[in-house]
Amino acid sequence: MTSSTRENFQLALNFVPKSYLTQAIQASQHSAKQINLLLRQGKFPESGWSDVLIEEFLQQISTLDSNNFPHNVGVGEREARIFSSLVKARHWGLGHGIGRSGDLCASQPKAVGSSLLYNLTTSMVKDAIKAAGVPGAVDVVVLPCATGAALMLCLSSLAEVRPGSDLVVWLRCDQRSCFKAIYSAGLKPVVVDGMLSGDEVVSDVACVEALLSGSECKKIRAVVTTTSCFAPRAPDDIENIAVLCKQHDVPHVINNAYGLQSTKLMHRIKESARIGRVDIVIQSTDKNFMVPVGGALAFTFDEATAKRISGAYPGRASISPIMDLFMTLLSMGKERFLELRKERNDLKKLLDLELQALAERHSIRTLAAPNNPISTGVALPEGTAPKSATALGAMLFTRGVSGARVVTPGKSSSIGKTHFVGWGSHHKSYPVSYLTASASIGMTRSDVIGFIACLDRCLTEWRRKEPVPNSLTVQQNGNADANENSDQVHSLINNKHCIQDKENSNGLTSEE
Amino acid sequence: MTSSTRENFQLALNFVPKSYLTQAIQASQHSAKQINLLLRQGKFPESGWSDVLIEEFLQQISTLDSNNFPHNVGVGEREARIFSSLVKARHWGLGHGIGRSGDLCASQPKAVGSSLLYNLTTSMVKDAIKAAGVPGAVDVVVLPCATGAALMLCLSSLAEVRPGSDLVVWLRCDQRSCFKAIYSAGLKPVVVDGMLSGDEVVSDVACVEALLSGSECKKIRAVVTTTSCFAPRAPDDIENIAVLCKQHDVPHVINNAYGLQSTKLMHRIKESARIGRVDIVIQSTDKNFMVPVGGALAFTFDEATAKRISGAYPGRASISPIMDLFMTLLSMGKERFLELRKERNDLKKLLDLELQALAERHSIRTLAAPNNPISTGVALPEGTAPKSATALGAMLFTRGVSGARVVTPGKSSSIGKTHFVGWGSHHKSYPVSYLTASASIGMTRSDVIGFIACLDRCLTEWRRKEPVPNSLTVQQNGNADANENSDQVHSLINNKHCIQDKENSNGLTSEE
Amino acid sequence: MTSSTRENFQLALNFVPKSYLTQAIQASQHSAKQINLLLRQGKFPESGWSDVLIEEFLQQISTLDSNNFPHNVGVGEREARIFSSLVKARHWGLGHGIGRSGDLCASQPKAVGSSLLYNLTTSMVKDAIKAAGVPGAVDVVVLPCATGAALMLCLSSLAEVRPGSDLVVWLRCDQRSCFKAIYSAGLKPVVVDGMLSGDEVVSDVACVEALLSGSECKKIRAVVTTTSCFAPRAPDDIENIAVLCKQHDVPHVINNAYGLQSTKLMHRIKESARIGRVDIVIQSTDKNFMVPVGGALAFTFDEATAKRISGAYPGRASISPIMDLFMTLLSMGKERFLELRKERNDLKKLLDLELQALAERHSIRTLAAPNNPISTGVALPEGTAPKSATALGAMLFTRGVSGARVVTPGKSSSIGKTHFVGWGSHHKSYPVSYLTASASIGMTRSDVIGFIACLDRCLTEWRRKEPVPNSLTVQQNGNADANENSDQVHSLINNKHCIQDKENSNGLTSEE
Amino acid sequence: MTSSTRENFQLALNFVPKSYLTQAIQASQHSAKQINLLLRQGKFPESGWSDVLIEEFLQQISTLDSNNFPHNVGVGEREARIFSSLVKARHWGLGHGIGRSGDLCASQPKAVGSSLLYNLTTSMVKDAIKAAGVPGAVDVVVLPCATGAALMLCLSSLAEVRPGSDLVVWLRCDQRSCFKAIYSAGLKPVVVDGMLSGDEVVSDVACVEALLSGSECKKIRAVVTTTSCFAPRAPDDIENIAVLCKQHDVPHVINNAYGLQSTKLMHRIKESARIGRVDIVIQSTDKNFMVPVGGALAFTFDEATAKRISGAYPGRASISPIMDLFMTLLSMGKERFLELRKERNDLKKLLDLELQALAERHSIRTLAAPNNPISTGVALPEGTAPKSATALGAMLFTRGVSGARVVTPGKSSSIGKTHFVGWGSHHKSYPVSYLTASASIGMTRSDVIGFIACLDRCLTEWRRKEPVPNSLTVQQNGNADANENSDQVHSLINNKHCIQDKENSNGLTSEE
Repeated sequence: MTSSTRENFQLALNFVPKSYLTQAIQASQHSAKQINLLLRQGKFPESGWSDVLIEEFLQQISTLDSNNFPHNVGVGEREARIFSSLVKARHWGLGHGIGRSGDLCASQPKAVGSSLLYNLTTSMVKDAIKAAGVPGAVDVVVLPCATGAALMLCLSSLAEVRPGSDLVVWLRCDQRSCFKAIYSAGLKPVVVDGMLSGDEVVSDVACVEALLSGSECKKIRAVVTTTSCFAPRAPDDIENIAVLCKQHDVPHVINNAYGLQSTKLMHRIKESARIGRVDIVIQSTDKNFMVPVGGALAFTFDEATAKRISGAYPGRASISPIMDLFMTLLSMGKERFLELRKERNDLKKLLDLELQALAERHSIRTLAAPNNPISTGVALPEGTAPKSATALGAMLFTRGVSGARVVTPGKSSSIGKTHFVGWGSHHKSYPVSYLTASASIGMTRSDVIGFIACLDRCLTEWRRKEPVPNSLTVQQNGNADANENSDQVHSLINNKHCIQDKENSNGLTSEE
Repeated sequence: MTSSTRENFQLALNFVPKSYLTQAIQASQHSAKQINLLLRQGKFPESGWSDVLIEEFLQQISTLDSNNFPHNVGVGEREARIFSSLVKARHWGLGHGIGRSGDLCASQPKAVGSSLLYNLTTSMVKDAIKAAGVPGAVDVVVLPCATGAALMLCLSSLAEVRPGSDLVVWLRCDQRSCFKAIYSAGLKPVVVDGMLSGDEVVSDVACVEALLSGSECKKIRAVVTTTSCFAPRAPDDIENIAVLCKQHDVPHVINNAYGLQSTKLMHRIKESARIGRVDIVIQSTDKNFMVPVGGALAFTFDEATAKRISGAYPGRASISPIMDLFMTLLSMGKERFLELRKERNDLKKLLDLELQALAERHSIRTLAAPNNPISTGVALPEGTAPKSATALGAMLFTRGVSGARVVTPGKSSSIGKTHFVGWGSHHKSYPVSYLTASASIGMTRSDVIGFIACLDRCLTEWRRKEPVPNSLTVQQNGNADANENSDQVHSLINNKHCIQDKENSNGLTSEE
Repeated sequence: MTSSTRENFQLALNFVPKSYLTQAIQASQHSAKQINLLLRQGKFPESGWSDVLIEEFLQQISTLDSNNFPHNVGVGEREARIFSSLVKARHWGLGHGIGRSGDLCASQPKAVGSSLLYNLTTSMVKDAIKAAGVPGAVDVVVLPCATGAALMLCLSSLAEVRPGSDLVVWLRCDQRSCFKAIYSAGLKPVVVDGMLSGDEVVSDVACVEALLSGSECKKIRAVVTTTSCFAPRAPDDIENIAVLCKQHDVPHVINNAYGLQSTKLMHRIKESARIGRVDIVIQSTDKNFMVPVGGALAFTFDEATAKRISGAYPGRASISPIMDLFMTLLSMGKERFLELRKERNDLKKLLDLELQALAERHSIRTLAAPNNPISTGVALPEGTAPKSATALGAMLFTRGVSGARVVTPGKSSSIGKTHFVGWGSHHKSYPVSYLTASASIGMTRSDVIGFIACLDRCLTEWRRKEPVPNSLTVQQNGNADANENSDQVHSLINNKHCIQDKENSNGLTSEE
Repeated sequence: MTSSTRENFQLALNFVPKSYLTQAIQASQHSAKQINLLLRQGKFPESGWSDVLIEEFLQQISTLDSNNFPHNVGVGEREARIFSSLVKARHWGLGHGIGRSGDLCASQPKAVGSSLLYNLTTSMVKDAIKAAGVPGAVDVVVLPCATGAALMLCLSSLAEVRPGSDLVVWLRCDQRSCFKAIYSAGLKPVVVDGMLSGDEVVSDVACVEALLSGSECKKIRAVVTTTSCFAPRAPDDIENIAVLCKQHDVPHVINNAYGLQSTKLMHRIKESARIGRVDIVIQSTDKNFMVPVGGALAFTFDEATAKRISGAYPGRASISPIMDLFMTLLSMGKERFLELRKERNDLKKLLDLELQALAERHSIRTLAAPNNPISTGVALPEGTAPKSATALGAMLFTRGVSGARVVTPGKSSSIGKTHFVGWGSHHKSYPVSYLTASASIGMTRSDVIGFIACLDRCLTEWRRKEPVPNSLTVQQNGNADANENSDQVHSLINNKHCIQDKENSNGLTSEE
């Protein structure tokens, strides 16, 4: 790093005329000012930085780590020696990782640059979260692991405030990682199945209330809700659950994996924290900020909770996901981030309209999931065989469409000791097969158009190839299911089944 | 990726003369052959690859991930869109991470390239471990987290085979991360303090035996030993503890953090597995293979154990630490790796000799730690005040020596609910202040020479500045301590104190 | 380079499931197909390539050069050893340059990759020139030097067909490099001054005719005309001059430095070649294809002329400018190139409109230069002192506007033995001071808007600061000058002044 | 560029503890100091810089060019817009090239960074030349073209001091580029053939003297001698020719293409300049400093001559070869450069010894060329057919040996209007076929060993395959040839044949 580049360039007078030099030096100060502003305020920059400036700053940061000191002599067991020059280059020479035995956020004496990078990232992320709609977020921990492991750490970090607790109330959302996180943290899940409300799968708030009111409430480490999910599951009713958590003094962790990109979900989180209790909100860095998989953000409404999370991480960790986020925040800037969110929102509307039109052309229908701001579902014809539905999914994938999921009823899956019926649909008996598609940040208009065109062709071809069900009448969800579900809920509570119910055989969820 | 570059280059005949081209194409096949060999055998290459070839192969791998397909349309919530071109470049466009909900080693349909990279790395690492001295290693899991978190995962993965267990017998080694890992996994530590044997701090095997023979044995998830540690702590007596674990059917996890670089330690692990029980051996990627902090290796002696580790990781993870290792193994090659280990071994001898000579010049002495193959200790003059000892450490650091640790008696530290007396020295009452230095892989002769020269100057200056203790007679460790310690051990066992001993007030270790 | 990546990746079955792999390999063939097409056809690709593909191809090309052969042993005096790894990387390991003693286009036995790159570039450029409007261009030489040196080489290459010739008829265009090229080639210039036609400075065709009809015609190596120039100079009347050159059998070289970006100029060249004689058309790579300064293109209407140019270059040359062009053509693609030309054309119209409006606001006027498709001039108020005009230019530059030139009458300059009066304005006595601005390829709408805004502010400020001439009436060019000029022309021819007129004292041009 | 990175980093106190930061900032000043020293002194650094520092400095330099100013608005015809981001990156954003219409060394107002880079390179090169053995070198021009074009420019630049001259006296050295340069500069060569002295081909000083004493001396632009050449040609007798040039007041240009790497040749140049006249010494950047082909250095013993060279270049040129040299000088450092020269010298001795031994094993002999410090020749058996000799060369090349040249008598070649008999051997009738090999800078011991081993195998195989001449007696060069040559010389002078001798039919050299 140059201590005083301006002074150095005055020396360039030996080699170029003063009249030219003066202006060039002045112009070249622009980037120094951008760096200065960042270090002064720690804010998500309004406008993105150039790649060149980002690299320059990384290079300067790198000179602050001891392994890059010119005359460093290393006699420890970890000296950040990097064998491969390619590897060294991709990390800008930062080799010491982040964290210091016992605290992810602790500064490292040998790696001041790495520590600075980490703390600047945290500071910018805090600003980004406020800009994204939750100004009340007090602290944030940038985690060097994806959402699943982040949830594990967050649950683990709550041990201190919930001594003796080993249960996690989990509102079913059929995504393996987050459920596994409960087991990995040495805890036991209590699964609250979703309920049908029209096409939507919604939170069974009554069941949560019953659980929190129960005698075993002290054993509950936290309630885990999910906001970002595949249609027709709706985001959980986090407002009411937050209120319940406040009433019963139980921690509330929101898995907002890819919800930071949605103004609506962020608004709901703000509201939930205002009227109820929200301890930790977890989101993915890759899904919200378009970095490679590997990081997560956990924001909190007080400093102590954040401190406990960073203190729960055992040891050092890779700086790589942090560096990706750091570089991306600088490159993107706040304006572009808000613009990207706006574009995403518009594309969701376009996707819905186009899917609606396509569905009509093919005499099928979209699933009504009005609360899901990201994902949309299209029901396949009644009577579509699971194998046939899967064939449609494969057809799409082969033609270059990734991310469109086909869900068929009747699949089941075991994770740890829990058995799930109707796996994939967030519900034990979702009535139809369907296809989902999402409008997520970074999507382009041509993605939507390309997807609709491909789906159009595939549906036509698929109809020709696959055994068509006799009736094309699309099934309407009756109320029977919802009733059945609420029956179950009552029985669960009455029978105290919901906690570690090992003999549960009603098909909803069971631990074996 | 080019399907058939050779065929393509035949077309170059349109532009260059055949006579020149033929030989050039032939010569250019060299790299194709190296890639072919790797894909055919999955072995740590004998000789290192050029950077150019590594980049080329990464680029080819990258084309196999769906986000890099030319006509990909993404409608999922995770489409590996990478905003920053700098970030994209440093990951060669690989954005999907590794792992698939539920298994770190599972191949990802959308990310075949990433999966291939991960599986090739695993395969090469397996070969490297055999080459490093444990040919019996059956399987390995390359973990996207450093040793602390790796230990947490490994302990968590053993839940399935130790239902109901929540204790971990831990042979004290004063390094926070690994101790915290026990708490993070939702488990409780049972600390076995070290014993003095001359200058060395050695394993209290009798205490371990007593614990495993106790009535609470079933509640023990695992015994955790450590091989790589700072002198004067000796590597644990893993052979005898392995035998005990086998006898009592208790899992044995070895923290071999930076031991893979030591032929002696690897030999001892091989022996322990032969005569006793070793379930999992954990090591750091950065400390053994000179990559940035962020990865760990867990090798096992059967496939089921490895499968459980990879299945315990909740969700996806950053591919970055894996990529670093992949690139480094290719760049280094087996020959250079073995050479580097040999050089390290030679430098350890040099370091010892030089420290010995320097100690004599300064009328102090080195600590006898004959079993530690990596680290060496130098006792400071008897009576050195802790503050004064610390000043020496600061002096060295300021002059560019990193990694030399100064340890003073009498410090204490709490981690979770455990309180440690004599923190830093692995022993409740190590009798002297001392300084440690290590010879780790990648060290150079000039590091040793530079360190010795600097220490020489610093000692002289320090003597001048710091209040000198009256007597320069260096304290000899008596047997009192060792006896006292073995007394304690007996009392622990007798009083069943060692398991969750909440009232423990004898200063050794206590849970509050 | 991989001979058969597809085959190699079949081996990946050892590491990833077949079902995933098959599709990934298929998708990854896309780039192989792009390379295949290029090598098969040698055409400017319709769509641009990705950076990744460009790098991959460069890397493959690099493996064909002998210094990159894995087991190369070099015992020559030039073995393309590259000391700095940074330098090596920026050239993708290509170190042998281009050319082979005696021919720039000759393939090098030791550097097949470099030769391939050069010949592919030539082939793509040929296609680009046809696409740019001159389908009759038969051959092209991509020169590793900028336009000035390129003109020198081209003039030198014509020696063979014009034995004994040492004069170059040069239609005055006030740009030093091209004029100096005549001297550097060991030749002598005969300057034909421009004539005024309204505001425009136009070709004095009659003078050229007189010169070609003269007795010394055999001594003329070539007539050099210019198409791309700063307003108010018009592009030369290349059609009529081409006809004259045909009639008198004299080579005609067109300096089309930045004219390739103009459809109009390219059309005029096509026409000139159709109806008259055009031997060589020279253009800059940086000005037309947005690469760094360093290359030029010389296209011809027969192969022999091109062959002579490439044969005139003495020795090897840097591959760097060729590599830049190669990468840029691949990155840009033909569609984008044509689009950029269209955008430029539209921005020229915008620039003219905006300058017109601005001129009115400031009571000045734009210069009528209807034939110049790239550059526009704005007359400064009559009576503006040269020093004052220059101050306006400096003001613009200081505020970040680069490329706006202020020209004032009355400057003179000597190049070699020639003295120019009215230097900068292409005319011995251009009546007003003026400012020029150009719309060149790559310009954006915001450049135009930013320039107009800045000029607006600067003019206002300048008016305030600078001594304002009494009358703001803008001078109209009378016919007097044009007449005077044509008078001169006659006298020149009559007096045989125009060839090496050493005593010429009429102020137009003089050799001393 | 950061104006004051140190000040900026003080702000990092917001994010990292002061105690850690202070030392890190201090350590990070190291590179600022290296840059400071370079800008202060402009010297070839004693020790090489790290790649990271080189990139940082290039980045800083880049910010000084107007196209990189943050708010630049470009309305010129050349605004250094760079389309391809890859191309931009490889030039660190420097797009304006070097030179300014009329002078290669002139600073560009729009490109202060590029100008600085160029002038710093010149300054370092001047220092390097002094260090390489010619302390009297007063000025140097770093040329953006290889030696051939450089010679053309230098000859062209001498026009001013030699008005009316159009002849170049050229001591035959069979390398096309430099000979072509004479024609490209619009001049006519007068070839002075070499004489045999034992095995060596040496300068015919008497002939040069005769030419300079002749009546046409005024028409001679310069005498061109060569120091670096393939054995058995000896470096020219530059000392005596320098004396003659001084006596007759004729410019003397030395082609020292790869002689800068030889202490002996540099010493001889120093001596020649001391006792006689040397105007310009030309050398290749690639051959002496291990950069890619593309640059040349012309050093002079007064400033005016250098000024004329830089003024002779018509227009701008690529900065790329200058950038390569700049980066390489910084990366290498003076110590390493001198070391590399020493290593080269040692390897030449090794090569000679090994070739001697190999020759004896194969009953052939090496050519005695005691004055050539770089290249060595091995005579092939008497009677070896040219085709057979060529086959040996091909055999070596196919086996990976590049740069070993096989020369056979009896070839002829025409360049421009000159016909050369015995082309390749620098002599009209060299008596034997031979093979040459060079020890050039950057060569390694393993190159020598590998070459000898390969030549050994090839000779054996070649003997088996090729028709062996009856007698293996190796021909000894008689004095007949030398005498015949000196006879010719006399006749040349007497008959005034040597200047443009069109009827010359004696086979030596002829213009047709």
